[in-house]
Amino acid sequence: MKVGGRPYRTIWLKAGDERVVQVIDQQRLPHAFEVQDLRTADDMCRAIRDMTVRGAGLIGAAAAFGMYLASLQAHDSGFDDAMTRAGAALQATRPTAANLAWAVARMHAAMAMGRTPEDKRTLARREAQAIADEDALHCQRIGEHGLTLITELARAKHGAPVNILTHCNAGWLAFVDVGSATAPIYAAHDAGVAVHVWVDETRPRNQGASLTAWELAQHGVPHTLIADNAGGHLMQHGLVDLVITGADRVTRQGDVANKIGTYLKALAARDNAVPFYVALPSSTFDFSLRDGVAQIPIEERGAEEVRWISGKTTQGRMESVQICPDATPARNWGFDVTPARLVTQLICERGLCEANEAGILSLFPEQA
Amino acid sequence: MKVGGRPYRTIWLKAGDERVVQVIDQQRLPHAFEVQDLRTADDMCRAIRDMTVRGAGLIGAAAAFGMYLASLQAHDSGFDDAMTRAGAALQATRPTAANLAWAVARMHAAMAMGRTPEDKRTLARREAQAIADEDALHCQRIGEHGLTLITELARAKHGAPVNILTHCNAGWLAFVDVGSATAPIYAAHDAGVAVHVWVDETRPRNQGASLTAWELAQHGVPHTLIADNAGGHLMQHGLVDLVITGADRVTRQGDVANKIGTYLKALAARDNAVPFYVALPSSTFDFSLRDGVAQIPIEERGAEEVRWISGKTTQGRMESVQICPDATPARNWGFDVTPARLVTQLICERGLCEANEAGILSLFPEQA
Repeated sequence: MKVGGRPYRTIWLKAGDERVVQVIDQQRLPHAFEVQDLRTADDMCRAIRDMTVRGAGLIGAAAAFGMYLASLQAHDSGFDDAMTRAGAALQATRPTAANLAWAVARMHAAMAMGRTPEDKRTLARREAQAIADEDALHCQRIGEHGLTLITELARAKHGAPVNILTHCNAGWLAFVDVGSATAPIYAAHDAGVAVHVWVDETRPRNQGASLTAWELAQHGVPHTLIADNAGGHLMQHGLVDLVITGADRVTRQGDVANKIGTYLKALAARDNAVPFYVALPSSTFDFSLRDGVAQIPIEERGAEEVRWISGKTTQGRMESVQICPDATPARNWGFDVTPARLVTQLICERGLCEANEAGILSLFPEQA
Repeated sequence: MKVGGRPYRTIWLKAGDERVVQVIDQQRLPHAFEVQDLRTADDMCRAIRDMTVRGAGLIGAAAAFGMYLASLQAHDSGFDDAMTRAGAALQATRPTAANLAWAVARMHAAMAMGRTPEDKRTLARREAQAIADEDALHCQRIGEHGLTLITELARAKHGAPVNILTHCNAGWLAFVDVGSATAPIYAAHDAGVAVHVWVDETRPRNQGASLTAWELAQHGVPHTLIADNAGGHLMQHGLVDLVITGADRVTRQGDVANKIGTYLKALAARDNAVPFYVALPSSTFDFSLRDGVAQIPIEERGAEEVRWISGKTTQGRMESVQICPDATPARNWGFDVTPARLVTQLICERGLCEANEAGILSLFPEQA
C-alpha cells in the first residue's frame, strides 16, 4: 500500500544491506511514520513482543525474517541447535498467534533442505521472502473473494454506501500488504463501490484508532472512529451492513481467536441478523485444535496497557496518561474466542467457506 | 460514603450558605478530589452537561437543586415563567436521562403548592433536599434487596469470592449516596460476604476506570480494572458470577437504556448463562414508553470524547492525548438499549421483579 504516495510493505530486507530487516514502527503510528532496522533475532523477538510489529500475517513474516537473522548470527558449529533455540524464542513471543508456529516450522523445513550452514542461510532468506510474498498474495485473493460479498450488498442498497464494521487492525499493517479484513474493503473502494467503515477503537492498545483509521485515511476510504462499546447500538439501528474481522488463530471446526472484544461484536451481529465474516489466510488455521474456547491459549499482557494510554498532546508531544487511581489493579487478556456458530462465513485465499470442519476441509482437503 | 474517612454525599447545600449548592467535581476524579460551588441554574446546567455531575440519580438531584437555585434567582414578577424556562433548560441538558424530567416535574408540582414566590422558594429547597434524601434511601433499599442475591451465590460458591461485573459507574458517585449497581456490592462487603468486582473501563469517558475503581478502593472492595472488550472472555471462562449495571431510563416493559456497551455485556451474559441484573430506583422508569430501542432518545456527545483521552502523566500533571490521526472523524453515542429479554431481573427499592410489564407493575401497581 502507499504511504504519502510511495509504495510500502510492512517488512522487507534493507536495500543495499540484506543483513538488515526493516519494518514500519507501529508503536509510533499514527503520529509518526518511522522505519526501524532489525539486525538480530533478539531484535525481532523484542519487536514482536512490544508490538513494533503485530497482526496475524505480519507476525508470521516477522518470525520468518527473525529466523533468517538468527541464521546470519549462528556459527557454523552448532548451527542447527542455534536455529532450534531461535525458533523456540520467536514462537514464545506471542502465545495466541497461529502464524508464529506456522512460520517457524516452515523455516525449519526449508533449511532442512540445505546441506551446509551457508546453504541454509540462503534458503532462510529465500523462504522468509517467500512467506512474505505469499502473505501479500493471499491477502489479495481474500480481497477478490470478499469483494463479491460487498458488491452484492451495494447492489441491494442501490449504491448507498455499504457500512462495514471492523475490530482492531486486520489491515495491511497487520500483514505484509493489503490486509485480511481490509482486503475486500480496499478492493471494493478501488472498484468504485461506495463503502464506509466503522472503526472500533480497540482498547486497550487502540489499534483501530491508531492503525486502522490511519491506513484507511491513507487510502482514502471513508471511515468513522467509534468506541468499542458502540457496535451493538449501531447494529440495533441498521447502521451496519456487515462485520469483517481478522483472526489470530482459527481451529479446524471454525472457532476464531481474534482481538479481545471480537466475540461481543459477533454476539451483537447475530442478535441483529448482521452477517459476520472472518477473513484469514490459511496460515492462520491451527488444524490441530477443535474447540477454540477450551484449547486456544489466550495471551495475557501487562496491566499497564489497561491503566495507561498513549497519544499526542495538544503541543504535539507523545505522552502517556494514567486513567485510573494509582493503586488500581488491572488484567489484560489480548484475545477472545468467537465460537464458529456466530461466524457467517470465513473468507480465505481459496474462497469462502462455512465456519465448520466440513466447510473448512472443502477448501483445504489436504488437511482432512 | 466516606472519602478519606469523612462522610460525603455527591451533592448538598453549603453549610452556612444555603444559597450555594456544592458537588464533588467528577471531572477531576480519580486524580483530585475537589468540591465545586454552584450558584445559579446555569451553573447547574453546565455542570450536568460537562459531567461535573453525572449518573442517573445524581442528575435528578442536580436538576432539583438547579430548580432551587433558579427559584433564588427568579424575580417575584414573572416567577412562574422563569421557573418553566429553568426546568426546560435543565431537562435539555442530557436527553436520555429519565431522572431529569422526573425531578423537574416533581419540583414544579411541589412549588405549585405555594402561593407566593417566597413560599415557592422554600418549597423548592425542601423538595430538592427530599429528592436527594429519597435517592439515598432508595439506593440503600436496592442494596438490601440485592444483598440476598449475592449471599445466595456466595453460599453456592462455599464462600469463594463472588465475581461481579459492572459497566460504567452506577456507584454512589452516580447517585446521592450508596449507588444503584454498587449498593448490593457495598451491602455484601459490609456484611462480610467476599466479593470481587470486574470494573469495565467504560470508554469513551472511562467512568469505570476513573470513578468506579476509585470509589470501590475508598470503600475497600476488591476489584480489577478491565477493558470493555474483556467481559465476554471472562464469562466464557466462568470468571463472572453475575452482572449488575445501573440504568438511565427503563421503559414500562423493561427495556434498559444504560451506558453505551451495556447491551454487549447483556448479550455475553445470556450466551454464557450468567445472570444479568439492572438496579434502579423507581425515578429512572419512564412509564410512558414501551419499546426502548425504538423510543428512548439516545444522546450523542462530541467526537472529541472519543478522539482524546485525559489522565495523569508520569509527572503527575493532568493531560489530554489524541489517540487517532488528526483528521479522523468519530461518533459518540452515550447510551444503548438492552432489550428486556436479556435482563434476568430488575432490582428496585421495592424489591426484585421480572423485566416485563407485568413484573414491573407488580411492584408499581399505581402505574397500571
